[in-house]
Amino acid sequence: MSHEPARVITDLRELAERTGGPGGARRVAWTEEWAKAREWLHSRLAELPVEVEQDAAGNLWATLAGEHEERLVVGSHIDSVPSGGWLDGALGVCAGLEVLRSYAETTPPVTLQLVDWADEEGARFGRSLFGSSAAAGTLEPDDVRELRDADGVPLPDALAAHGVELDRVGEARGRLEGIGAYLELHIEQGPVLADLGLSAGAVIGTYGVERHALRFAGRAGHAGSTPLRLRHDAFLAAARLGLAARESAARHGGVATVGPVRVAPGVPTIINESCEMTLDQRAFEPEALASMLRDVRAAGDSIAEDEGVEITWHRIWNIEPIPFDPELVAMAEQACQEVTDAAHRLPSGALHDCAEIARLAPAVMVFAASTGGISHSPAEDTPERDLERALVTFARLVGLTIEWLRRPDVDRSGV
Amino acid sequence: MSHEPARVITDLRELAERTGGPGGARRVAWTEEWAKAREWLHSRLAELPVEVEQDAAGNLWATLAGEHEERLVVGSHIDSVPSGGWLDGALGVCAGLEVLRSYAETTPPVTLQLVDWADEEGARFGRSLFGSSAAAGTLEPDDVRELRDADGVPLPDALAAHGVELDRVGEARGRLEGIGAYLELHIEQGPVLADLGLSAGAVIGTYGVERHALRFAGRAGHAGSTPLRLRHDAFLAAARLGLAARESAARHGGVATVGPVRVAPGVPTIINESCEMTLDQRAFEPEALASMLRDVRAAGDSIAEDEGVEITWHRIWNIEPIPFDPELVAMAEQACQEVTDAAHRLPSGALHDCAEIARLAPAVMVFAASTGGISHSPAEDTPERDLERALVTFARLVGLTIEWLRRPDVDRSGV
Repeated sequence: MSHEPARVITDLRELAERTGGPGGARRVAWTEEWAKAREWLHSRLAELPVEVEQDAAGNLWATLAGEHEERLVVGSHIDSVPSGGWLDGALGVCAGLEVLRSYAETTPPVTLQLVDWADEEGARFGRSLFGSSAAAGTLEPDDVRELRDADGVPLPDALAAHGVELDRVGEARGRLEGIGAYLELHIEQGPVLADLGLSAGAVIGTYGVERHALRFAGRAGHAGSTPLRLRHDAFLAAARLGLAARESAARHGGVATVGPVRVAPGVPTIINESCEMTLDQRAFEPEALASMLRDVRAAGDSIAEDEGVEITWHRIWNIEPIPFDPELVAMAEQACQEVTDAAHRLPSGALHDCAEIARLAPAVMVFAASTGGISHSPAEDTPERDLERALVTFARLVGLTIEWLRRPDVDRSGV
Repeated sequence: MSHEPARVITDLRELAERTGGPGGARRVAWTEEWAKAREWLHSRLAELPVEVEQDAAGNLWATLAGEHEERLVVGSHIDSVPSGGWLDGALGVCAGLEVLRSYAETTPPVTLQLVDWADEEGARFGRSLFGSSAAAGTLEPDDVRELRDADGVPLPDALAAHGVELDRVGEARGRLEGIGAYLELHIEQGPVLADLGLSAGAVIGTYGVERHALRFAGRAGHAGSTPLRLRHDAFLAAARLGLAARESAARHGGVATVGPVRVAPGVPTIINESCEMTLDQRAFEPEALASMLRDVRAAGDSIAEDEGVEITWHRIWNIEPIPFDPELVAMAEQACQEVTDAAHRLPSGALHDCAEIARLAPAVMVFAASTGGISHSPAEDTPERDLERALVTFARLVGLTIEWLRRPDVDRSGV
């Protein structure tokens, strides 16, 4: 059976019909609807000569034994945010299913595995990349043991209802031992490819993130009777910092985003005494991210002095940039070039399971264009022509990677 | 009896004890505590040979007949915001009481009147300068008829409980006919005099105000996967406008203040789609205020284009600058110079009853220094030495104004 992108689109639509609808996908991990999505995946896999298992972290594995011992893993996540898009995660799982299907008529040259990572989104308990980080050995059970969902259900109970014991999730790590490569197709969740008129792109890695909560403490004062020179305006200090962060991101090729902004007292006739906001900075080069953080710290010091405002920083979270395997990136580019007549490399601003896997094994992603970059929304979409071309690109990458895995001269020992 | 500032401070402390305390003044107009404050004022006035009446708008008048027909009115407001300062309003009323007291032993050269304006603060129904604007003829009963307090009590009912019939408040206008001058002492409610180390200053008039609600409409997007060049960040557009407004205010000698700021969705990983904020611009020269408004409109147009964000403006309120009488301002300066060895003119950034009166008659204010500029707070204060000097300055201004009213060569016909 040859690779047929149309079949993937049919699968995606069927999955969306069963676990989505006009309100969007509702395959939140560790829920019944998620289990329903997996039942559907099981029923599809049952048509193939594959062995299906769930690992200790709740990841679903389907293995198609090959002629040789090398293992190629393809996959993504079938879980979604509430009211999510029909492609986010599901595209990569269904693309992987089609990879198994297209190689299942004969014995493939290498062993092929499809993985559906458990709880990529963290939509119910706030911890993203659950299954893939467990498999990569970066999930500490104690860090998530106390998490509860909005109804107060503890995470360990929700896991247990789906056959996962929190203290044993680390055992999933064995699954990644000795794999030859990991490939993932995912919708971009950003506007870059669509803006360039491209169907697919080769992803070079994931951005590093520095996320801080900032508090600006100034002084309240009457909007009429306090001259400018005697003000300590917390909002204007925050405004300057937000703009300085963007300027620095532009200089270093990264991005910077101000999220929540809360001023107090927030009265039209009173100068704001305090302002709280978050600042999320991302870049692909570690040096760029470090420079961006240095820049805003310096800008903060100078703004604090200018404005007579105190600025306090609290780091919420950070992660280093994770580059994908250079040879796999080059092959992904080659596949894009062959199928879509254009090769575009881009970093991923969002995190993905692939970043966890890339810590341990050669890994790469292909992005499919995303209309308007709309993500985590029922309006998420990719035009059918782009979807098909991205699927063919991914299939081509699988073929190139199998060849690569079989080449005796390649050193695939380290990342 | 000569003018004794210490007696005013004793009165102020007694009033604060009866209608205030550690939680601050609580003389909100049209409440029992306000009536209690006025009872106290009545009891003090009862010691003097004055006629006391309440006019149709609820203003309290005490008249000490003079030798000549010219009338000099002094006053302020005894009402406060909830948890207000001990001096805001009360200082001017008690200073006026002392003026009557100091002239009451003999017949003064001109008729002296103390007025306690009703509901300067608008703390219960949101309409400031109630009594003084009724007397100045700028209060339209229909504009306030539907106002209700936080408990749903209609304004007309609250007025009626204090002997005021909404449809007759315009009759208060007769009170201002033919007055020679109006003088008011008030705490500055700003940091200017304290910052300059001055006890008192001559007020040249009140700032004009342009107050707008602004809405910035951009586009949401993922904080990681949306490159800077494809963003439409509503918050950063608002930040730029706030800074542009300050820059323009600095250039034109005014002030500009951003009050409430609300962003949406306000999530650390999402670019803000919308931002709402208020902008309050004030200046003393009408041309300056007009230029400031023109500047921010132009800045808004250019920011909207740069950022790809739509900005909508809604005017909440505006008032023109109201200059005080130049001759009275000069006399207030002279009094400051004589008593405090320093003459400082300053505009008032806040509105005052005096601004309403200045529409019809020669009027001026003296400001007493305000520690740290703290206003509408139990922490409001003026050091006793400054308070005494401001009171003596005001008494000197009363003396100079009486002489001025008796000078036959002065044209006091128009303002």
